[in-house]
Amino acid sequence: MENFVFSNRTKIIFGRGTEQQVGVETAALAKKVLLHYGGGHIVRTGLKARVEESLKHAGVSYIELGGVQPNPRLSLVREGIKIVREQGIELILAVGGGSVIDSAKAIALGARYDGDVWDFYTGKAEPQDAMPVGVVLTIPAAGSEASTGTVITNEDGWLKRACDHVILRPRFAIMNPELTYTLPPYQTACGAADMMAHIMERYFTNVREVDLTDQLCEAALRSIIKYAPRALEEPENYDIRANIMWAGTIAHNDLLSTGRIGDWASHMIEHELSGIYDLAHGAGLAIVFPAWMKYVYQHDLPRFVQFAARVWGVDPDYHNPEKTALEGIRRLEEFFKRIGLPTRLADAGIPADRLEEMAAKCTANGSRTLGRFVELTKEDVLKIYQLTV
Amino acid sequence: MENFVFSNRTKIIFGRGTEQQVGVETAALAKKVLLHYGGGHIVRTGLKARVEESLKHAGVSYIELGGVQPNPRLSLVREGIKIVREQGIELILAVGGGSVIDSAKAIALGARYDGDVWDFYTGKAEPQDAMPVGVVLTIPAAGSEASTGTVITNEDGWLKRACDHVILRPRFAIMNPELTYTLPPYQTACGAADMMAHIMERYFTNVREVDLTDQLCEAALRSIIKYAPRALEEPENYDIRANIMWAGTIAHNDLLSTGRIGDWASHMIEHELSGIYDLAHGAGLAIVFPAWMKYVYQHDLPRFVQFAARVWGVDPDYHNPEKTALEGIRRLEEFFKRIGLPTRLADAGIPADRLEEMAAKCTANGSRTLGRFVELTKEDVLKIYQLTV
Repeated sequence: MENFVFSNRTKIIFGRGTEQQVGVETAALAKKVLLHYGGGHIVRTGLKARVEESLKHAGVSYIELGGVQPNPRLSLVREGIKIVREQGIELILAVGGGSVIDSAKAIALGARYDGDVWDFYTGKAEPQDAMPVGVVLTIPAAGSEASTGTVITNEDGWLKRACDHVILRPRFAIMNPELTYTLPPYQTACGAADMMAHIMERYFTNVREVDLTDQLCEAALRSIIKYAPRALEEPENYDIRANIMWAGTIAHNDLLSTGRIGDWASHMIEHELSGIYDLAHGAGLAIVFPAWMKYVYQHDLPRFVQFAARVWGVDPDYHNPEKTALEGIRRLEEFFKRIGLPTRLADAGIPADRLEEMAAKCTANGSRTLGRFVELTKEDVLKIYQLTV
Repeated sequence: MENFVFSNRTKIIFGRGTEQQVGVETAALAKKVLLHYGGGHIVRTGLKARVEESLKHAGVSYIELGGVQPNPRLSLVREGIKIVREQGIELILAVGGGSVIDSAKAIALGARYDGDVWDFYTGKAEPQDAMPVGVVLTIPAAGSEASTGTVITNEDGWLKRACDHVILRPRFAIMNPELTYTLPPYQTACGAADMMAHIMERYFTNVREVDLTDQLCEAALRSIIKYAPRALEEPENYDIRANIMWAGTIAHNDLLSTGRIGDWASHMIEHELSGIYDLAHGAGLAIVFPAWMKYVYQHDLPRFVQFAARVWGVDPDYHNPEKTALEGIRRLEEFFKRIGLPTRLADAGIPADRLEEMAAKCTANGSRTLGRFVELTKEDVLKIYQLTV
């Protein structure tokens, strides 16, 4: 097991009606906030009005900045930073899903930095300071509500890049599973794929004797596999939505990677897809992850056998571990299809004519490799893209 | 799933050589500390000298208070509070296992309270404030390094009582598995039983549809069951010790009880045993928990079948779930025996002549019930004690 530092300060306030507490939680940290959100969904459901009422009641004033899009854009982040500076904002309150939270984190970083916020996403600058971020979560998927990460898309070149730092963990996250009742089936499914991918990125490691976190990863995966199809059948079943929502946080708050070195190539390979085609991240992962597995499974056959047996309940063929490993991958793909996700580019209406361009882009034209479980060159990445056709 | 608030600020610094960081971590919070520890073990292993060196190097001054005993005593806590007040101490640094940490937490509470610190353990007072506590952990067992709890024994009547509050989570916990190489087999086994009990107290719940945390509990249990016997065979195997050490924290930092209502009767029933007979808490739990299970399993047979099947790999007898449930309990008991723990009072050299007294004591003479999974009266508790004979 590797040495690690693990600390997660995010205060999770989970359950029915918890959005009523947003005013009190916010007021403990700030008197003036940026209310950051996406589109009309939170208006239509009445959530925005409830949040505003709670803020007012707690004596918190706010300035609104809506319009966050899926694959959140750098231009809106820059607009947010400007508002924060001009208006003396003390906290960014993200009401929405991962895109809104990632955008809020970017604003929180950029507002405390003299240079251009994009520097953090290119690696030119290292985060030193960030404003506090609070969250009212509406989409369980990205895990950004308690994670250290933010992913932003720069429209100039459609570059989708990530920044990770422990200071980016939100201060609080309010999570009411009832708010997810109205999520369309496709978004529910994309969320499940996103969570599973977060766990699988951590699961496939070269670090030995990490059975505790192996078991925890497998446990969380099995629970998502159990509940995601049921959420599609019974979208207003509280307990099903609650288990999924909490799984999304656990999948990505770094507990499951303590002492491990994760892979993360699939995420980078996917970012090119959703960056260019504006595909939902979870859908992109459903396409990329099985392809990545087919390409790398021989690197550690026993781990893929364990994945097949423990996560998917495959009865191992002890004489033919390869068959067992492939059956596990097949079941993953089958599961994604069952919950209505694409598993090939064509399923998502994406042409196969820019694979070389994407392989070049995500490896900085071959100058860097991707992944810690298996190091992938530009050529490897291209072959993985070809497996998605 | 129940509503919950979960927040764990404890910064875990885990791995080889991490005790060298104690000075820097402490200096970030305080300049003068109480160095709190037990007996000569940390002197003999050189740990104490290394901690002192690191503190000095970071410019932290300290006053020593050793002498914490297993089942830590109120009298020493009172002595600590006096020193803290007289000397202007800013942080309590616990170097040791659960007893030392629990004692440190009690001092941290009492030093910021005008009344008698025992008030917090009788329920007369509710924690409002506490000094910061830091930890260098040497015994993985109690989980106190990141938990909200402290258990103290009042020599006046040998009352062993607990206090729980979120402000009692330590600020940091330094965990080097190498420090546990010298733990005697019996203490290693007691630690495993303690961790397992922490998980099982959370696992047996009446809350429905909590599969995610069910799975996580089962995962952690399986990993402890896998590694504990191996730790006895290979005490200096880093990875084995590391998995166990981290499991001890996860077992009791409340993640595994999010959305659930745990039972905790077995802990209270055990506290009378170790309070009177000065038995190791883990050994007491190995005696009490199987007896409790035998007494209550019919309350929720399917849960005990699930426990047998998922934790112990019992092949369920679908025509006879009771048999399956009992086989799970038998395997738990067998496991405790295998790692060298007592499972009956006589195994620990404890006579059976004060059972009524203990049943009366832990139910406040029948005026309160124990347990949330099954509510136990004084008579029920007596019957459970009788099953330990």
